Amino acid sequence: MRVDIGNALAAVAQPGVDRNSLGSLDDRVGRAHDRIERGIDDREFGYAALGLPAEADPGAIREAVTPVEDSEAVLTVGIGGSALGAATLTEALVPERFHGVLDNVDPAHTNRLLADLPLAETAVHVVSRSGTTAETLANFLVVREAFEEAGVDWTQRTVVTTGESGPLRDLADDQGLPALDVPEGVPGRFSVLSSVGLVPAAIHGVDVEAVLEGGRAGREALAPSLFDSPAYAYGAVAHALEVRGAATNVMMPYEERLESFAEWFAQLWAESLGKDGLGQTPVRALGATDQHSQLQLYRAGRHDGLVTFVRARERPGCPIPQTDVEALSYLGGTDLGDLLDAEFEATEASLAAADRPSVRIEVDRLDAAGVGELLYGLEAACVLAGELAGVETFTQPAVEWGKRAARGLLGGGDFEEADAVAGKERLTVDADSDGSDRD
Amino acid sequence: MRVDIGNALAAVAQPGVDRNSLGSLDDRVGRAHDRIERGIDDREFGYAALGLPAEADPGAIREAVTPVEDSEAVLTVGIGGSALGAATLTEALVPERFHGVLDNVDPAHTNRLLADLPLAETAVHVVSRSGTTAETLANFLVVREAFEEAGVDWTQRTVVTTGESGPLRDLADDQGLPALDVPEGVPGRFSVLSSVGLVPAAIHGVDVEAVLEGGRAGREALAPSLFDSPAYAYGAVAHALEVRGAATNVMMPYEERLESFAEWFAQLWAESLGKDGLGQTPVRALGATDQHSQLQLYRAGRHDGLVTFVRARERPGCPIPQTDVEALSYLGGTDLGDLLDAEFEATEASLAAADRPSVRIEVDRLDAAGVGELLYGLEAACVLAGELAGVETFTQPAVEWGKRAARGLLGGGDFEEADAVAGKERLTVDADSDGSDRD
Repeated sequence: MRVDIGNALAAVAQPGVDRNSLGSLDDRVGRAHDRIERGIDDREFGYAALGLPAEADPGAIREAVTPVEDSEAVLTVGIGGSALGAATLTEALVPERFHGVLDNVDPAHTNRLLADLPLAETAVHVVSRSGTTAETLANFLVVREAFEEAGVDWTQRTVVTTGESGPLRDLADDQGLPALDVPEGVPGRFSVLSSVGLVPAAIHGVDVEAVLEGGRAGREALAPSLFDSPAYAYGAVAHALEVRGAATNVMMPYEERLESFAEWFAQLWAESLGKDGLGQTPVRALGATDQHSQLQLYRAGRHDGLVTFVRARERPGCPIPQTDVEALSYLGGTDLGDLLDAEFEATEASLAAADRPSVRIEVDRLDAAGVGELLYGLEAACVLAGELAGVETFTQPAVEWGKRAARGLLGGGDFEEADAVAGKERLTVDADSDGSDRD
Repeated sequence: MRVDIGNALAAVAQPGVDRNSLGSLDDRVGRAHDRIERGIDDREFGYAALGLPAEADPGAIREAVTPVEDSEAVLTVGIGGSALGAATLTEALVPERFHGVLDNVDPAHTNRLLADLPLAETAVHVVSRSGTTAETLANFLVVREAFEEAGVDWTQRTVVTTGESGPLRDLADDQGLPALDVPEGVPGRFSVLSSVGLVPAAIHGVDVEAVLEGGRAGREALAPSLFDSPAYAYGAVAHALEVRGAATNVMMPYEERLESFAEWFAQLWAESLGKDGLGQTPVRALGATDQHSQLQLYRAGRHDGLVTFVRARERPGCPIPQTDVEALSYLGGTDLGDLLDAEFEATEASLAAADRPSVRIEVDRLDAAGVGELLYGLEAACVLAGELAGVETFTQPAVEWGKRAARGLLGGGDFEEADAVAGKERLTVDADSDGSDRD
C-alpha cells in the first residue's frame, strides 16, 4: 500500500496541513504507535483486531466451509459489521459471484432475494455475536422456513459464526452445524479479517491465507512515524484535516468492485470516530461515475471535506474499438482502463486546482493479498485517528437507545425509550389535506 | 407525499428552525414560488424540468421501445443524469429486473456485465445529450462489439436518447434506430420524468403514464406556502437548516429498492446546490441497515447534519415464523415490515432524543404514481432550495476543468488543465521503500 498526502498539504489545499506541522504531528503518531502496539500485544479490547492476521485460523475456516464448498451462491445473513466485511471481500475478490447480503429487514427485499436464489445450491452464513440481533435472527427464521418450503435441508447448507454462547451457538450445537467464533475483543466493524468476513470468500474458493498474508504485510508496515507507515500517514492526515475543518471524508475508489468496500469504510470511520461531537462524516462515492454526480460539490461547495481516492495500479483491460466518428476518434484504440486512469488523474488534479484536499491510496493489484493489506491499513489508520482524537474508538454507545426503543415498540419488553416515540413533535404538510397539521 | 418537519424545529434539535422563524421563511417561499411558476410557464432553462410531467409524451416512448418490449434485461449506457434516473425508476418499480447500469469505465466491470447478460434478450438504451460523453460512448463502442461478437444484431436491440444533433443522433439516423429526445432546457439530473429516465422502465412494462400522473400530482401540490406544499416544506427546511449549520444531508430511505433513488437524490442535491462555497453534502444511507453502521455518528458526531427519512406507508409483508427460542419470541408471529417500521420510528426518535434534526417524507405506496410524485417533489424542493440560497441551480461549471484535463491526457486535444496533472505535489509514503518520497 502506498499513500500520497501531497495534495493534503497547506501549499495545495484549504484545509491543508502545513509541512512545518508534520513534525509535531509525527511526534504524536510515534506515541500513539506505542499505545497501539501495546494494545495489540496485550490483546486489549479493540486493539486485538490489529492482531487478527497473525491469529486467524484459515484451516478452521476451510474445514467449516467444506460441506458447502463451491456453492453457487452464498447468502450472508447479518447486519453492520457482521455483513459489510463479508460483502467487501466477496465483491472485491469474486465480483461475479456477489449478489448482495441479507442485511436489512425490508420484506420485499427478503422475499425477492429468496425467490431469486437457487436454494439447493446456496450456502447460508449467519453471523451475530450475541445470537440475538433482531434483524439477523428475524431474517434467519424466514430463510430457514424458505429452505424448508423448498424441500432443502437448511442444516446441510448453513455455517454459523457467533460468540461463545447464545441462541445461535445453541442452535449450532443442537443441529450439528459448522460453527466458527467471532473473535474475542474485536468489534464487528474490525472483524473482516476473521471468520466473520472470510467465510463467504472461502466458500467461493478465495485463497483466505493470501488475504491474511496481505493483512500481515499491513501489520509489518506499522511504524512509529507517518513518514514510514502508509496507514499512519493516512490516519494522521485525515485527523489533522478534520481538526482543520474537513468534517466530511469522501471515500472514492476508482474500482467498481470496491463499492462495498466504501460502505465498509464508512462504518469503520463513522462508528469508531463519530462521538463526543467529533468525527468526519464518511461519504461513499465511486470514480469515475460520481464525477458526473458529486464532483461539482466537492470542487465548489463548502471547504469542509477530504476526498480519499483508492485505486489499484494494475487491472485487466477492455479495449475500446476504433470508430470513424471524428469526435470520438481519440478514444478508439485505447482501453477503458486508460480512460479511467486519465479521469482519475484529472479529477485528483481538479480538486487540487480548486484548493480542495485529497489523499491517494494505491495498492498494486486488487488480488487477495492487495485487498487484505488495504483493509488492514484502513483499520490501522482508523485506530490511529481515534488515538489522535482521544475518543473511545471501539465502542458505539449511541446506537443502544434506538435498539431499546425498537424492542419496546415490538412488545419485547418495557423500555422507556419506546415512550418517546409517542411524544413526537409533529408538523406535517400534506398535499391532500387542507393545510398542515400543526400540533 | 407528506412531509413532517416537526423534528427539524429548534424545540427538538440543534441546528433547528425556531417556529417563530417559519413565518419569514414562508414569505421567501412565496416569492420563490412565483419565480418558479414563471420559469415553468416560460419553459426557462432548468425550470422547464418541473413542466415535464405535463409535456412528456408516453406514446412516443411506448412506440420507441416496441421493438425491444419485454426484453429480459435492459442495459442503460449513460453516466450521471443520463443513468441515475433510469436506475432509480427501474430499481424502485421493477426491482427484480434491475441489474445496475453501465455508468462507469471500469474494464473489469464492463467485461463482467457483458459476460453476464443474455445479449440476445437484452435491450440497450444509450443516453447522452451531446452524443460525445467520453465514458458513455466508449462503453457503447465496447457494447456494440460484444453484440457483434455474439452474433446479435445490435441495431435491432438499441434505443437512443440524445439531443437534436451529434454523433449519437447521426448514428440513430444512419442505422434507423428508435431515437428519443433529451428534453430541451432540462439538465440531466432533472430529466428522470422524460425519456431519459422512463425508457428502461417502459421496456419492462411499467405504466409510464402512471409515473407521469404522480409527477402531475406533485406539480399540482406546489403552492405559495411551505405549510401547504410538502415539497416546499422540505426544500425550505433543508435550506434553513443548512444556514443554521447542517452542512450534510443524509438521505436515508427505509426501502431497499430506493437505494438508487438515494444516489439520484445525491446528484440532484450536490450538483444543483454545491456551488459558491455553499450546499449540503448529500450522504447516501439506507434504513434499517445503516443503523448498524452510521447511526452512532449521526447521534453523537458533529452537530452538522440533517437526516432525511423516506418511506412508504404500505408495503408487502413477510411473516416471521414462530420460534421456541425465548430471547427471540417477541419476533415470532410478527412481520419483517413490523420490525422495519419499529426500527424506523425508533431511529427517528433516537435522533430527536440526541437533539439531531430529521425530516420525514412519506408516500402511500412505492407504485408508479407514488414514485413519480416523490421524484417530482424532491426536484421541486431542490429548485426551491436553490432559489432560497441564491445560487445557479441548473449549471455545474466546476466539473468542466476535469473533463478538459482528462481529454488532454488522452490525446484528445491541447488543454492546459492536463499540464497541471504533471505538476502534482507529491508526498508518498510507501511501505516497500526506505522512507517516503518527498519532492
